[in-house]
Amino acid sequence: MAAKVLQTNLEVDYVISYRLPADKEQGIQQFKKLIRALTEIGLTTEVRRGDETSLLVFVKAADENVFAQVVYRSRIKDWLYGVRQIQPTSSPAETLAAEPLTDAERYRQIHHMISCPTEEGGAGITPKYGDWKNVEAIFPLHDHVKNKKWLTEFSRKTFLSPEDLDEVRNTVGEKIGYYYAFLQSYFSFMIFPAAFGFSCWVLLGNFSPVYAIVNGLWCVVFVEYWKRQEQELAIRWNVKNVSAIEDKRKEFVPEKTITDPVTGEKVSFFPSKKRLQRQLLQIPLAALCVVALGAVICTCYAIEIFISEVYSGPFKSVLVFLPTIILTLAIPTISNFLTQFAERLTNFENYETQESHDKAMISKVFVINFITSYTAILLTSFVYVPFASILVPYLDIFGLTVKPFAENEKQLQTPDPASFTINPNRLRNQMIYFAVTAQIVNFALETLMPVITQKGTKKFKEIQESRAEKQGGVAPSISSNDPPEEKEFLTRVREEAALPEYDVTSDLREMCMQFGYLSLFSVIWPLTPVSYFINNWVELRGDTFKLTVECRRPNPARADSIGPWLDSLVFLAWLGSLTSAALVYMFNGGDGPDGKPHAIKLWALLLSVFLSEHIFLVVRLLVRTAISKLDSAALRKERSERLMVRKKYLEDAGLAHAIKPLTTAPNSPLLSNDSGDNSFASITRQSLEDDARRDSLRDTTPASKFWNRQRTWRETEQVGLGMIDLMELGGKAEKKKQ
Amino acid sequence: MAAKVLQTNLEVDYVISYRLPADKEQGIQQFKKLIRALTEIGLTTEVRRGDETSLLVFVKAADENVFAQVVYRSRIKDWLYGVRQIQPTSSPAETLAAEPLTDAERYRQIHHMISCPTEEGGAGITPKYGDWKNVEAIFPLHDHVKNKKWLTEFSRKTFLSPEDLDEVRNTVGEKIGYYYAFLQSYFSFMIFPAAFGFSCWVLLGNFSPVYAIVNGLWCVVFVEYWKRQEQELAIRWNVKNVSAIEDKRKEFVPEKTITDPVTGEKVSFFPSKKRLQRQLLQIPLAALCVVALGAVICTCYAIEIFISEVYSGPFKSVLVFLPTIILTLAIPTISNFLTQFAERLTNFENYETQESHDKAMISKVFVINFITSYTAILLTSFVYVPFASILVPYLDIFGLTVKPFAENEKQLQTPDPASFTINPNRLRNQMIYFAVTAQIVNFALETLMPVITQKGTKKFKEIQESRAEKQGGVAPSISSNDPPEEKEFLTRVREEAALPEYDVTSDLREMCMQFGYLSLFSVIWPLTPVSYFINNWVELRGDTFKLTVECRRPNPARADSIGPWLDSLVFLAWLGSLTSAALVYMFNGGDGPDGKPHAIKLWALLLSVFLSEHIFLVVRLLVRTAISKLDSAALRKERSERLMVRKKYLEDAGLAHAIKPLTTAPNSPLLSNDSGDNSFASITRQSLEDDARRDSLRDTTPASKFWNRQRTWRETEQVGLGMIDLMELGGKAEKKKQ
Repeated sequence: MAAKVLQTNLEVDYVISYRLPADKEQGIQQFKKLIRALTEIGLTTEVRRGDETSLLVFVKAADENVFAQVVYRSRIKDWLYGVRQIQPTSSPAETLAAEPLTDAERYRQIHHMISCPTEEGGAGITPKYGDWKNVEAIFPLHDHVKNKKWLTEFSRKTFLSPEDLDEVRNTVGEKIGYYYAFLQSYFSFMIFPAAFGFSCWVLLGNFSPVYAIVNGLWCVVFVEYWKRQEQELAIRWNVKNVSAIEDKRKEFVPEKTITDPVTGEKVSFFPSKKRLQRQLLQIPLAALCVVALGAVICTCYAIEIFISEVYSGPFKSVLVFLPTIILTLAIPTISNFLTQFAERLTNFENYETQESHDKAMISKVFVINFITSYTAILLTSFVYVPFASILVPYLDIFGLTVKPFAENEKQLQTPDPASFTINPNRLRNQMIYFAVTAQIVNFALETLMPVITQKGTKKFKEIQESRAEKQGGVAPSISSNDPPEEKEFLTRVREEAALPEYDVTSDLREMCMQFGYLSLFSVIWPLTPVSYFINNWVELRGDTFKLTVECRRPNPARADSIGPWLDSLVFLAWLGSLTSAALVYMFNGGDGPDGKPHAIKLWALLLSVFLSEHIFLVVRLLVRTAISKLDSAALRKERSERLMVRKKYLEDAGLAHAIKPLTTAPNSPLLSNDSGDNSFASITRQSLEDDARRDSLRDTTPASKFWNRQRTWRETEQVGLGMIDLMELGGKAEKKKQ
Repeated sequence: MAAKVLQTNLEVDYVISYRLPADKEQGIQQFKKLIRALTEIGLTTEVRRGDETSLLVFVKAADENVFAQVVYRSRIKDWLYGVRQIQPTSSPAETLAAEPLTDAERYRQIHHMISCPTEEGGAGITPKYGDWKNVEAIFPLHDHVKNKKWLTEFSRKTFLSPEDLDEVRNTVGEKIGYYYAFLQSYFSFMIFPAAFGFSCWVLLGNFSPVYAIVNGLWCVVFVEYWKRQEQELAIRWNVKNVSAIEDKRKEFVPEKTITDPVTGEKVSFFPSKKRLQRQLLQIPLAALCVVALGAVICTCYAIEIFISEVYSGPFKSVLVFLPTIILTLAIPTISNFLTQFAERLTNFENYETQESHDKAMISKVFVINFITSYTAILLTSFVYVPFASILVPYLDIFGLTVKPFAENEKQLQTPDPASFTINPNRLRNQMIYFAVTAQIVNFALETLMPVITQKGTKKFKEIQESRAEKQGGVAPSISSNDPPEEKEFLTRVREEAALPEYDVTSDLREMCMQFGYLSLFSVIWPLTPVSYFINNWVELRGDTFKLTVECRRPNPARADSIGPWLDSLVFLAWLGSLTSAALVYMFNGGDGPDGKPHAIKLWALLLSVFLSEHIFLVVRLLVRTAISKLDSAALRKERSERLMVRKKYLEDAGLAHAIKPLTTAPNSPLLSNDSGDNSFASITRQSLEDDARRDSLRDTTPASKFWNRQRTWRETEQVGLGMIDLMELGGKAEKKKQ
């Protein structure tokens, strides 16, 4: 029985977690409203106790016929928006039978019913917002059998098959499906740079121009390939153009309501010029990000260099950790603050659709992440390496601060600029940190930490509860009232309700930033792709674990792309062509960099960067053109389908060959080719035209006179042949004359 | 009567000019076939004599009802391809009455009937190709009244109004309409750089960085604005997505015929990989263009410099013209040869649709034109100006050739490299040539020459004829057999048939190349935009003259863009950011260029170019984003229309609010909000669940047990309220406890 309970979700479609507010009366009113709203749209409800102050409302479709109607309507809408090629013609019941719903589709439909606005026929329940701020979460239940299967299967495989990706899409929707597909493509593509990088590391060492060229080329091909892959997936998953179906944003505040001159409907309106003005605030925001984060990172960087390479005073072994501590504390704080700022700005920009809002937000998040991720290594590459011997002496300013602690004068001696040499391994060590250490730390924080925290919290609660029970059982356990046969099921649901939401955006961001390291800096250490290759195998399994165990089951969402991250990839690949060329030049020109800028010829540096960039752009154009011209089975299939639909429509309307059948008039035996010629042989051109002229006397307009000269096509033919006869054509005509 | 004849085309829709071949029998057969083919598709024919060896077949729709059917079918097709938003529901006759055809549309439909393949219901007549190689031309007749009106009206106006553009579109179709709209936008936009350029010329002189920045910005804004303008015009003219309706290319040679797995039809197939391989031949072609044209231009350029600046021997005054003569003879020959080569390559690439063929051809034409147009001035800017003093002594090689003609030794003395100074005005003079002289010469060649030639040929023929008549009248004039009332009309048609075709591509190319001079080099001479502003006013009138008087009336074609030229504009604007920065730096750094390269700091040149380019790209991104976010009335209207169509469909299907009406079941009076609460007050949670438990004993599955605990929404509500009552919520709960 226990195993069976684990396997079944008791037909529950969705669970709504309702948190009672401090004001009981208000809580009761809203709860009543919730149940009514759900019932009104055709959902059956069951209520159970959640935790101390929450209720769990279980929801399923009341009537499968009504639900079929909803699905049918949504499919019609898809067809109207061009997502589906073929118009669903059968009745609602048939449409479901002909094309059964996947889990993800079913949950998406139910979720849409719950969340879409009342004007559009939904319940309009918006968790944690407005009227529904007590609704804590709306989520479907995990399919634990499938989850277990995934975890075991995926960890046995090196590559996921397209069917595995379909399975992911069928279970958690296209949006997460796209993330898996991207990660999978990225991972498979990485075989090549990993193998090549390893060979380079063995044969050519760091900063090899050959590696830089191959790496740049790989970045271009990968990005362009993925763009194409997105399109093919969109066809495979039937989500092409899905972004055209725009969901209104609930937070959108219209400036005024205008009456549309075409539809005559009232439409919320917000002038785009005003929005554009607000968007201009992004420029100061970006500047703020650069200044705030940049200042902290630069300062810490300077302190670190000072302590590790200049300072030789007391507490050196302790002080070395100072910048790291400052960074670890300051960066997340500042970047959280900036993200909140960005969020408020994005809200202020007041987008009408969720998609444009997300896009605007992601572009801001990208800027923040770009600065936090790459500033340190950019400083090493383009400030420390070329200018260290000039700048380091200025770090003396920190020396003054530590003066009181100095044990002797010698410790405070600033290094002689001439004798100072840069640490040639600094850049490589930094890259190794980003390629290996940071990835491991990140994985631990992202995947292992939550498990430990959750387990810990659970244990703590259990201990607390058992202690409370022992002390006199004032608060009986919530589960004590559960019907025994539901006990196990409800415990599971309560656990799932307590889990955090899964955020696919942050996983995508992580991959995007990793791609950036690869594109921008991997020439520093060619083993980078090897490390990422291994990491990404683990990453996919870790994300699966996160998705299935550590988070609530996400609401399935459709998508036809990884969204704005694609633009980030394009941008990073481009930027890589600049940084790689600069790094290769700086570390290959002469004896390698020594911190003295006069060793670097600025014109040569600029020329290499300039050439590299333009070669990159030309190659990108070529790759893009080549890929766009390649045909694929999916694209061909889609084209044929579209053609068939159009053709069928024209045929149904009896219009496929509208002209022909109507014009072969019965009294003109056109197809009996020359048989009629003889019967007309007696008609000469002169007699025909005489006829016509006689007729034309009765006609009034010059046009009808003109058109009545030759009244049938046979007459035209005769007259034409007569004219030809009069012509002098080449040799033949010559002969006739003689 | 005469005036009336000029005004009417006697209801003639199209004229087909049929040239008899030397082989009379074959000519007769094909003529018969032609008349039959035309009749079969529902056209009435009349035949008249053309010139010595040609016939003119006049064509009009036989039956307006049949023609309405054709139009209706084409509109349905438009709707299926998304060109029209609204499905034409009425019958063919009504569709024409509801939305009458413009001249251009009528002619386009007739032309489509004549030219589209027989499988698709047309006559499949392809002039000068395959079976129809004797058909010389298919063309509609000019509307001379309208033409005259245009010529007078346009020459009185400075700017064309949107209505004028609509008129152009209604008469000669969207493709030419787009050219007019582009020229008009370009002309209006040019006011600003013309005014600004003039001020710069007065105040700042040549090579002003301020002018370069403003000019670059203007180029970006103009190109991005035009992109948007194209979209708005597409909405205004109902041609959005029209490029999706692909006309098959008659020359397409399929590799094999495959059966489509989806539609089950036989489809011509040509593998795109094979085409891609063929397209790679473009690279050697481009190299050939660069070498062939580049070599000739460079040689002539070197000779010119040698003669004008080094040589002082005999015949100097004559020899100065030598390079110009070589160029004038060689360039058109070579570029014609290359264009033919490009045409053959494009044919070899074997495109399926006319559009992709044209696109591929235009990109090749652009390369050839780019080299012929800009090589000379690029040489002056980036070879002569910086390196003259190094390179000019090598021109001595030409000196050896002219040695035999030398009168004394002094004439052959090569200049001392140290004493040689470059001609500082050369670049400016060259720019003035391209901005003024070349434009005038071009206008004369393009617009005035044909008139003179045509008039001359006519006169010559007349003289010849009259002489022949005097000598004995062996060949009676062709027009002598014309019916007297048609005489004037037929003379006019014969004249029109003899005119060349109007080629809008070459006019667009011309404008595109002009934009290139403006973007790339106008910083050399800031009066350039003033000159182009004046030129373009004349250009538009000249083109109208060409279109209406010097050419046959073109077959109307639809388009939703100026096509690949747009990409050329984008590219030229980008390139301008590079050349302008380089020119500004070279002529402003120190004393200006003196032909000695050491005066130029390479790093500074590269840095200025690099910065300029990247600022350009960022600005372009901003302008693009800003323009894309601005809303316009046309776009709003289109959106509303689309929305209305979709809404209407859903409403018609009774699906607009599918959920609600179905779920407010009659026996649950949901909307009478709290009225029912009291009647249920007696039901306690315990009693309810007891009921359920009793029921559930009979149930078999755990799921139905679960869902039957609370059988109606009221029970759920009651149970939930009971649970809430048990909760300890904030302050209130505390009070209860006490």
